[in-house]
Amino acid sequence: MARKIRMGMIGGGRGAFIGGVHRMASAIDGEIELVCGAFSSNPEKSKLSGEDLYLPADRVYGSYAEMIEKEKQLPDGERMDFVSIVTPNHVHFGPAKMALENGFHVVCDKPLCFDMQEAEELAKLVKESGLIFALTHNYTGYPMVKQAKAMVSNGDIGKIRKVVVEYPQGWLSTFLESTNQKQAAWRTDPSKSGIAGAMGDIGTHAENLAEYITGLKIKQLCADISTIVEGRQLDDDGNVLLRFENGARGVLHASQISAGEENNLNIRVYGEKAGLQWFQMEPNTLYVKWLEKPMEVLRTGVGELYPSAQSHTRLPSGHPEGYLEAFASIYRNFAHCVRAFQAGKEPEAVYQDFPTVEDGVRGMNFIYKVIESGKSSEKWIDV
Amino acid sequence: MARKIRMGMIGGGRGAFIGGVHRMASAIDGEIELVCGAFSSNPEKSKLSGEDLYLPADRVYGSYAEMIEKEKQLPDGERMDFVSIVTPNHVHFGPAKMALENGFHVVCDKPLCFDMQEAEELAKLVKESGLIFALTHNYTGYPMVKQAKAMVSNGDIGKIRKVVVEYPQGWLSTFLESTNQKQAAWRTDPSKSGIAGAMGDIGTHAENLAEYITGLKIKQLCADISTIVEGRQLDDDGNVLLRFENGARGVLHASQISAGEENNLNIRVYGEKAGLQWFQMEPNTLYVKWLEKPMEVLRTGVGELYPSAQSHTRLPSGHPEGYLEAFASIYRNFAHCVRAFQAGKEPEAVYQDFPTVEDGVRGMNFIYKVIESGKSSEKWIDV
Amino acid sequence: MARKIRMGMIGGGRGAFIGGVHRMASAIDGEIELVCGAFSSNPEKSKLSGEDLYLPADRVYGSYAEMIEKEKQLPDGERMDFVSIVTPNHVHFGPAKMALENGFHVVCDKPLCFDMQEAEELAKLVKESGLIFALTHNYTGYPMVKQAKAMVSNGDIGKIRKVVVEYPQGWLSTFLESTNQKQAAWRTDPSKSGIAGAMGDIGTHAENLAEYITGLKIKQLCADISTIVEGRQLDDDGNVLLRFENGARGVLHASQISAGEENNLNIRVYGEKAGLQWFQMEPNTLYVKWLEKPMEVLRTGVGELYPSAQSHTRLPSGHPEGYLEAFASIYRNFAHCVRAFQAGKEPEAVYQDFPTVEDGVRGMNFIYKVIESGKSSEKWIDV
Amino acid sequence: MARKIRMGMIGGGRGAFIGGVHRMASAIDGEIELVCGAFSSNPEKSKLSGEDLYLPADRVYGSYAEMIEKEKQLPDGERMDFVSIVTPNHVHFGPAKMALENGFHVVCDKPLCFDMQEAEELAKLVKESGLIFALTHNYTGYPMVKQAKAMVSNGDIGKIRKVVVEYPQGWLSTFLESTNQKQAAWRTDPSKSGIAGAMGDIGTHAENLAEYITGLKIKQLCADISTIVEGRQLDDDGNVLLRFENGARGVLHASQISAGEENNLNIRVYGEKAGLQWFQMEPNTLYVKWLEKPMEVLRTGVGELYPSAQSHTRLPSGHPEGYLEAFASIYRNFAHCVRAFQAGKEPEAVYQDFPTVEDGVRGMNFIYKVIESGKSSEKWIDV
Repeated sequence: MARKIRMGMIGGGRGAFIGGVHRMASAIDGEIELVCGAFSSNPEKSKLSGEDLYLPADRVYGSYAEMIEKEKQLPDGERMDFVSIVTPNHVHFGPAKMALENGFHVVCDKPLCFDMQEAEELAKLVKESGLIFALTHNYTGYPMVKQAKAMVSNGDIGKIRKVVVEYPQGWLSTFLESTNQKQAAWRTDPSKSGIAGAMGDIGTHAENLAEYITGLKIKQLCADISTIVEGRQLDDDGNVLLRFENGARGVLHASQISAGEENNLNIRVYGEKAGLQWFQMEPNTLYVKWLEKPMEVLRTGVGELYPSAQSHTRLPSGHPEGYLEAFASIYRNFAHCVRAFQAGKEPEAVYQDFPTVEDGVRGMNFIYKVIESGKSSEKWIDV
Repeated sequence: MARKIRMGMIGGGRGAFIGGVHRMASAIDGEIELVCGAFSSNPEKSKLSGEDLYLPADRVYGSYAEMIEKEKQLPDGERMDFVSIVTPNHVHFGPAKMALENGFHVVCDKPLCFDMQEAEELAKLVKESGLIFALTHNYTGYPMVKQAKAMVSNGDIGKIRKVVVEYPQGWLSTFLESTNQKQAAWRTDPSKSGIAGAMGDIGTHAENLAEYITGLKIKQLCADISTIVEGRQLDDDGNVLLRFENGARGVLHASQISAGEENNLNIRVYGEKAGLQWFQMEPNTLYVKWLEKPMEVLRTGVGELYPSAQSHTRLPSGHPEGYLEAFASIYRNFAHCVRAFQAGKEPEAVYQDFPTVEDGVRGMNFIYKVIESGKSSEKWIDV
Repeated sequence: MARKIRMGMIGGGRGAFIGGVHRMASAIDGEIELVCGAFSSNPEKSKLSGEDLYLPADRVYGSYAEMIEKEKQLPDGERMDFVSIVTPNHVHFGPAKMALENGFHVVCDKPLCFDMQEAEELAKLVKESGLIFALTHNYTGYPMVKQAKAMVSNGDIGKIRKVVVEYPQGWLSTFLESTNQKQAAWRTDPSKSGIAGAMGDIGTHAENLAEYITGLKIKQLCADISTIVEGRQLDDDGNVLLRFENGARGVLHASQISAGEENNLNIRVYGEKAGLQWFQMEPNTLYVKWLEKPMEVLRTGVGELYPSAQSHTRLPSGHPEGYLEAFASIYRNFAHCVRAFQAGKEPEAVYQDFPTVEDGVRGMNFIYKVIESGKSSEKWIDV
Repeated sequence: MARKIRMGMIGGGRGAFIGGVHRMASAIDGEIELVCGAFSSNPEKSKLSGEDLYLPADRVYGSYAEMIEKEKQLPDGERMDFVSIVTPNHVHFGPAKMALENGFHVVCDKPLCFDMQEAEELAKLVKESGLIFALTHNYTGYPMVKQAKAMVSNGDIGKIRKVVVEYPQGWLSTFLESTNQKQAAWRTDPSKSGIAGAMGDIGTHAENLAEYITGLKIKQLCADISTIVEGRQLDDDGNVLLRFENGARGVLHASQISAGEENNLNIRVYGEKAGLQWFQMEPNTLYVKWLEKPMEVLRTGVGELYPSAQSHTRLPSGHPEGYLEAFASIYRNFAHCVRAFQAGKEPEAVYQDFPTVEDGVRGMNFIYKVIESGKSSEKWIDV
C-alpha cells in the first residue's frame, strides 16, 4: 500500500522558528509525515520537543548522528525517508553530509551551509549519491513566481533588459542581538552565520529569485555592503549593481535595518515588451505592465495561467495562499521525487521544480562575491 | 502519551473541493490526523479516495452510517474522535445527528444544514449531548478579524454606527450549472442547497462576519433578492439594508454575478471614533481610519495587537498567512477543546473561539428572513 | 481678436470653500477670466474679496442683482459672459433666474437649487432662453469616468446587471455645526440646504455618477435615511437599494458619519462580460475586471482609451490629474459652448459633455424620492 | 492697486508639452498672468501660438531677445515681471542670462542648462543681480514631499540610514526618436540635451528629491549607466549606489526603458525610528512605517501635518491634488517672492520654498559625476 513519505527533523526544537515552518509546510499536502527528530543538541530539549509533536519517545534522538545511525537500522517502511535540516547555517553541513552518506534524502534550509568549501563538497556528495536534495528557497514556490518564470521563458515579455530585486526588512534596526533574542543572535554571529549577515540571510533569497524568474545568471556585481547598527558583527545592509549574462542591468538591495519594513521581498523584471512586478507580501498577484496596452493584473487561479503556476495552486481564486503554501510546494515536489526515486521512476516534470544543491552553491558563491565586492575598490567583480 | 486528535471525514472524495480544504486546514497545526473516512456515497469512489489519502482500506467506509457504527466499536485511542462533514447542505443533518447521537464531536461545513427545522434540532442535540460542534465559518479565523472584534469590544472605535459588508463573486455570471460544473450544480439546486443560492452560500458568511466583529445582532432587514442569470433556480444576487440591535445602520450585499470578482468578502465598521476596514483577499491587513488622526495600517505580527489576534498568528510579520491558515485555526481551536473535553477540563478561553451550532442557527434564520424579505412588499422584516 | 470668456462670480468670498475651487478650475485651461464678482451678500466683504483677487474695484459688486444689472449695461466684449453661482443651495435659484432672464449663461454649483419647484422653473427658463447652463457635478469630469461611460455605451462590458455606488465621508461624525464651522453650518441647516443633508450634498453626486456612467435611469428605490449625530437637523447617512430601468439592481450609500473616510466616492458597474471599478481618490485608474481574463488596469494617458477620455486629459500618463482638473474640464467645455454660442455655431460634440439643468432636475427629484422613501413603510418608491 | 505678477514665456509654442504645463500651473492660484511670449524660434509659429493663448499680437515676439528688449522698454506695471523658460536644455542659458542682465526674474525648466560652465555662470549672475530664480523641480512642490522633509528635519524618523529613490519610465523602450516624436527627439540628442539622456531628464529629479527630503548631500556615487536601445545616442538607464554626507547609504535608479512604467518617481527614506515612503503617482499619500508601531498613512489634508505641507494644500482631504497643483506651488511661491521683491520686503518663509539656481548647479554636477562614474572603473566618485 502506498504510504506517506517519512521525515526526520534535525533542529527545530522548542523556541526555534523555522522548524515549525517546515513542519507545517510539510504537513499541508498530506504527502509527508514526521516520524522522528533530533530537535536540539540538548537531548532533554529534544525529548520535550518530541513530546510536543506527539512523537513516540523512541523516535526522538539526542543528536543528529544518533538519529541517522538508529533510523538506518530500522526496517524499510518504518525508518525515515529523508532528513529535514532546520538548524543555523553552521550546522547544515554535518548532518547533510552524514545523511547523504547513509542513503537519506535531504531537505535543507538556506543558505546551503557555512562556507564555499562545504558547499562544493555537498554538491559533490549529492551528485555521487544520486540522492535528492532540496534547498528551501521557499519564495520560488509561489504560483505567481512560477507564472513570471514561465512568461519570461516563453518570451512573453521579450528579451530581459533590467531587473530590480529588493529585500528590505526592519527587524534588526536596533542592536537586538544584545538582548539575546534568539533569531537575531545566531544570524549576526559570524561563528554561526558565516561571512555574511543580511546578505546571507535574505540577500541570497533575492539573488535566487532573480535568477529563477529570469533564467539568467548574474555575471558581474558591484556591492556596497554596510553594518549600520553599531556593535553588530556582520552586514545588515547591502546595495548591489548587477550585470546579467545577457547584458541586462540590475539592482539588488537587501537590508535588515529598513525601519518598518516587514518581509518585503519584491522583484521587477523589465523586458522589451513588458515589465513584471511581484511582491512577496501580496503573493497571489503578478502585475504585467505592457508597453503598448493596459497593465494586467494576473491572479492565482484567474484565467489561463501557465501550467507551472496552476499546478502549484490549491485553492480557487480569491482564497489567498500564503507563505506556508509556497513552502509546502517545495516539500510536495520533493516528496513526489522521493516517491519516484523509491519506485525507480523518473518524476513528473512538474515535481522536479524545487531549488537544489546547485542553487545552494550559486547562493554561497553570491555571498562570497558580494562580500568581496563590498571590501574592494574595484568596481566590478566577476561572479 | 498524548496523541493527535483523530478525524473521520464525511464527503470530500475525488472531485470535491471543500473536503481538500478541510484536510489541509486540519493538518497544518499538527494537532489532528485523518484516520478514516466515508468520502462518497459511492463506495468505490470512497475507497479510491481513501487510497489517495494513504488510509488503510479498513478505515475507508462506504457510507457515513457505516463509519459511525464501525468506528464506535473500535477501542478508545484508535477510533476517530470526531467527524468532519464536508458534504453539500442537504447531507449535513443526517451525519451530524448520527455522530452526535453516537458520542462523536462534529465539525460541519456551513451553512449548518438544509432548513430551519433541521437547524433547531441540531442545536438541541448539541446542547443535550454536551459534545463539541464547530461550524466552519472560516473567515472569522483570520487574525485581523479577531483584532477587529477585539477593538470593537474594547471600545477602541466607540459605539458602532454603520456597517458595510460585501461578498461579491463573479463565478456564476454565466449559466454554469448547465455545463454540469460540480460546484455550480449543487449550489444552484434547491433540492441540495435549500431555499437560497448566493445568500446561503456566501451571504451567511457576510452576516456571520458582521455579527462576529461587531458583537451586534441584526434586528431588521430589507432585502432585494434576485436571480439575474436566466434559467437559474436560486438567487445569485442580494442587496440588503440592515438595522442592528443598537440602532446602527448597515448594508450587506452578496453576489455571484459580479463579473470579475474573485472572492471579495470585505467589511467596514464605522464607530464614533474610527472606521475599520478589512478585505479577505488581503487578510493580513486591517485599516483603522481614525476620526482625528492618520489612518493606521495594522498588520498581522506587527506591534501590539490584541491577544486574540496574536494567538491565531503562526508566522512573523510579512510572511503572509492565508485562507488555509484561518481555516486551520478553527480546527486547531476545536482540537484543543476536544482534548480538554477528553481530559475533563475547561478549555482555555483562546481555544473556545470558533463558530458554533448557535451561529449556524442564526445563519439559517438569516437565510430565511432575507429570502422572505426579498419576496415581500413590506419594507422591514424582523430577524 | 479672440478673447477669453468672461466670468462673474456670485458667492465665494473670503472664508468660502467652493468659490476658490471654481476660480482655480476655471483658470486652468486659459479659456476663462474672472472679470467681476458679487462675492458676498455683505458688500464690504465682497469688496475685500475682490481686492484679494486683483479685480478692479468697479467690477466688485455688493449683490448679485447689482452685478447683473450693471454688467448688462457694459459694452459687449467688456461685460461678463456668464455667472458662476457658488453660494449655498438656497441662493442658487435667485441669481440663476435673474442671470438667465438677462441673457447671461450660467454655471451653478450642485445641487441645482432648494426645492423641486425651483428646479422645474429653472429648467423651463433654460429651455426658453436657449442659454447655456452647466451644473458642476464635477466628478463626471474625470477622464476615467468618461472612459467608463464610453465602455458601457459601446457594449464592452455587456448588459449592466448591478451597480454599487458609494460616497462615504467622515467629516460630520461629530456635532460640528455646533462649533459654527461654516461648511457644516449651512449644510445641516434645512433653511439653507433644503430637505436633505448628506443625500443632497453628496448623495446626488453618487446618483449622478451612476446614471452618467451607465446611461441608465433609476426607476425605483428603497431608502434607509438616518440622522446619526444627535442634535443634527438633517440626514447624515443614507443607504438605498436601487432598481434601474433595464432591470439592473443597485446599491447606493452615502454618509458623512463614516469615521475616517475622506471623500471616498467610488463606483462599481457589473455587466455580463466585465465589472468596472473607479475610485475618486485614485481618479486616474479604472479597473476592468473581466469575466474570462485577467483584470486590466486602465490609466489616464496609457494605451488606446476612448476619445472622450483622451480629450479630457491634459498630461502624459503618470502625471496625476486631480479634482481641480476634472472640475476644470466642465468649465472648459462650458466655455467652448459659450464661444460657439457667441459665434452662432454648434459646439463640437466633445465640448457638449457637461452636466446640465436636466441633470439638476433629476438630482433634485432623487433627493425628494430618497427622503420620501426614508420616511415610508412602503418598500419601493417610483422615481 | 495690487495686481497679478506678469509672465513672459520663452518656448512652449504649438506642439510643445512642458510649456502648456507651465501655463496651467502658473494660472491655478490666480497670482500670475501671462502677458507676452516668444513661443518659438519660428516667428510665425510664435505668432500663432500667441493667438491660441488670446494674447495681443504686439506682445507676441519672434525671439526671446526681442521680447526682453521690447518688454524692458514698456512702462512699469505693463511690462512683464519675469520670464518663464520652457525650451530644451540647450536654450536655457541664453535667455536666462539675458533676462537676468536686464532685470527680469526667471523661472527655468530643469535641468538648469546644457553644461557645467553655463550652470556656474548662471549661479554667479543670479547672485550678482539679486534677482529671483526658480528651477522647476516640480516634484518638491507636493504637500506630502514637504511633510516628509519636515518630518526628517524635525527628527521624527531619527538619523537617516538609507535612501532608495527610483524614477522608472518606459516611454523610450523603443527607438522612438527615429520616428521624429518631438519629445523623444531632443531628449536623446546630445546637441540639445547635453551629456546625459535619462540621467539628465529624470535622474536629476530623483537626486533633487532625495536631497530635498533628507536635507543631506550626496557625497560619493558609483554608477552603472547604459544605453539599452540600439542606435540611441544617450543613456536610457542608470543605476547608482549613493553615499550621503552623514554616512547614509543609498540607491538611485532611473530609467526610460522600464517597459510599462508611466512616471513612477518614488522614494523611501529609512531612519533609526521609521521609514517614509512616497509615490509620485499617488502623491497625496505618505506612508510612515514605524519601527515599533503600526504603519501610518498620512494624507494631504488629514490630521495635523506640518505647516509646510498644509500651506501647499488647496483642497480638503480626499479631493486629489496632482502634478499641476504641485507645479503651481512653485509658481505661487515664486510669485509671492517677486511681489515681496517689488515691495522691498523679505518674503514670508513659506514662500521661499522652491528650487533655486543652486539646486540647478547641484543637479548639473550630479549629471556630470554620474556620467563620469558610468565610464570609470573606479568604484567611488566624489560628488
